[in-house]
Amino acid sequence: MIGLFDSGIGGLTVLRSLQDKLPNETFIYLGDTARLPYGTKSTQTVRRYAEQNIEFLLSKGADLIISACHSASSAILQEKVSCSVPLLNVIEPSCQEAKSKSKNKKIGLLATQGTVSSGQYQKLIPQLQAQAAPLLVSLVESGWTNDPITDQIIDRYTSGLKKAEIDTLILGCTHFPLLKDSIQKNLGKDVLLVDPGDSLAKEVSNMKRPASKKEELKIFLTDNSPHFLKIAQAILMNFDLHIERVDL
Amino acid sequence: MIGLFDSGIGGLTVLRSLQDKLPNETFIYLGDTARLPYGTKSTQTVRRYAEQNIEFLLSKGADLIISACHSASSAILQEKVSCSVPLLNVIEPSCQEAKSKSKNKKIGLLATQGTVSSGQYQKLIPQLQAQAAPLLVSLVESGWTNDPITDQIIDRYTSGLKKAEIDTLILGCTHFPLLKDSIQKNLGKDVLLVDPGDSLAKEVSNMKRPASKKEELKIFLTDNSPHFLKIAQAILMNFDLHIERVDL
Repeated sequence: MIGLFDSGIGGLTVLRSLQDKLPNETFIYLGDTARLPYGTKSTQTVRRYAEQNIEFLLSKGADLIISACHSASSAILQEKVSCSVPLLNVIEPSCQEAKSKSKNKKIGLLATQGTVSSGQYQKLIPQLQAQAAPLLVSLVESGWTNDPITDQIIDRYTSGLKKAEIDTLILGCTHFPLLKDSIQKNLGKDVLLVDPGDSLAKEVSNMKRPASKKEELKIFLTDNSPHFLKIAQAILMNFDLHIERVDL
Repeated sequence: MIGLFDSGIGGLTVLRSLQDKLPNETFIYLGDTARLPYGTKSTQTVRRYAEQNIEFLLSKGADLIISACHSASSAILQEKVSCSVPLLNVIEPSCQEAKSKSKNKKIGLLATQGTVSSGQYQKLIPQLQAQAAPLLVSLVESGWTNDPITDQIIDRYTSGLKKAEIDTLILGCTHFPLLKDSIQKNLGKDVLLVDPGDSLAKEVSNMKRPASKKEELKIFLTDNSPHFLKIAQAILMNFDLHIERVDL
């Protein structure tokens, strides 16, 4: 059973990528909606939350744990977190994919302030063009994914990336794949967008996984406000959601 | 000693209003930056956080406690929270002020989704025109307070309020007073803006307070990321900030 955690419901985009690649696998998802977002919080605090999330997923029987959250992944890479089963993150696979696919070796990153400031992506890709895009999460959560105001904001965030002539852009936040069309339109079709959920799913599908009977997806949230349930449903459109609340 | 708490640093705008009206009073401020925002979370969760915040301020010797956060105030009004000293909130005084000052009795509210959905303002002002404005917090925290994109977003949020011909608008989130100029420009000078921090400060200045020696302002944050410190400094420009981190 693969356990994923995220600061909230954005990590469901990563779950979706994994489900596409691993249709016979059982998943359990933990969204820390009571304490989100992680992107603006200190490494120390995010690390503490990540450890609690990992402990919870282990207690539910996960034999592989994925940090679907970029801020948590960054905190984990920065200060080693111990875990009794393999612990993957969304940063390393996407950096590998971007480096192998970029032709001019000019790679960009759009992420939250926390992810950019942590410098973890920059460690894996020296000379990365990193741009914080803090408003994009709220825009997605407001449902303004196909909207002229969102297009203007994307245009402002990408102006430096365009000047730097990047040919590859990592979508360094779980919400950003939901803005893929607008970002692609803004940057033009010659820029390759790397979705870290997809990069990670490729890595996991190459791993040797124990055979087991597929069970139903279980979703745990630390807060189940109607607001998040609505967004979760929009991301995982075709799934019945079985959601339980848990205190961490 | 007056204790204020907020989900983060936005409540410093309320502290500033109180300091203006009560220059001889000692204040202690708790910002729950590790778990912000409250605006998107369930009443049950926000109430639990508010109780922990109150307990902390009582342990520090507060003899009057103020919920500077609109979402927490709304949760407190919804499900009575017990407190051994007087507990004030930002919702009731601003509603009283708006009702007494509006001439056409058409009052509007801009607030977070959580505050609007809670229906607490609507209970105090029947026929209130309530509009959720979730992006404004991120815009303030991005420093885009004087910006054509912010003006467009404000224009979209206020279109229903203008149609409803409100003559009074409650700025129902601690961040919104920092957008006062843009909102006033958008609505025109005939619409009165009610800043709940100011309404509350008037109420407190009418209370009989015990005489005591003024001590230095103490600020406690549950997470002290550089991001929040920067915003805190921008709000409380002229103050030396003495900030301590605390786990709740």
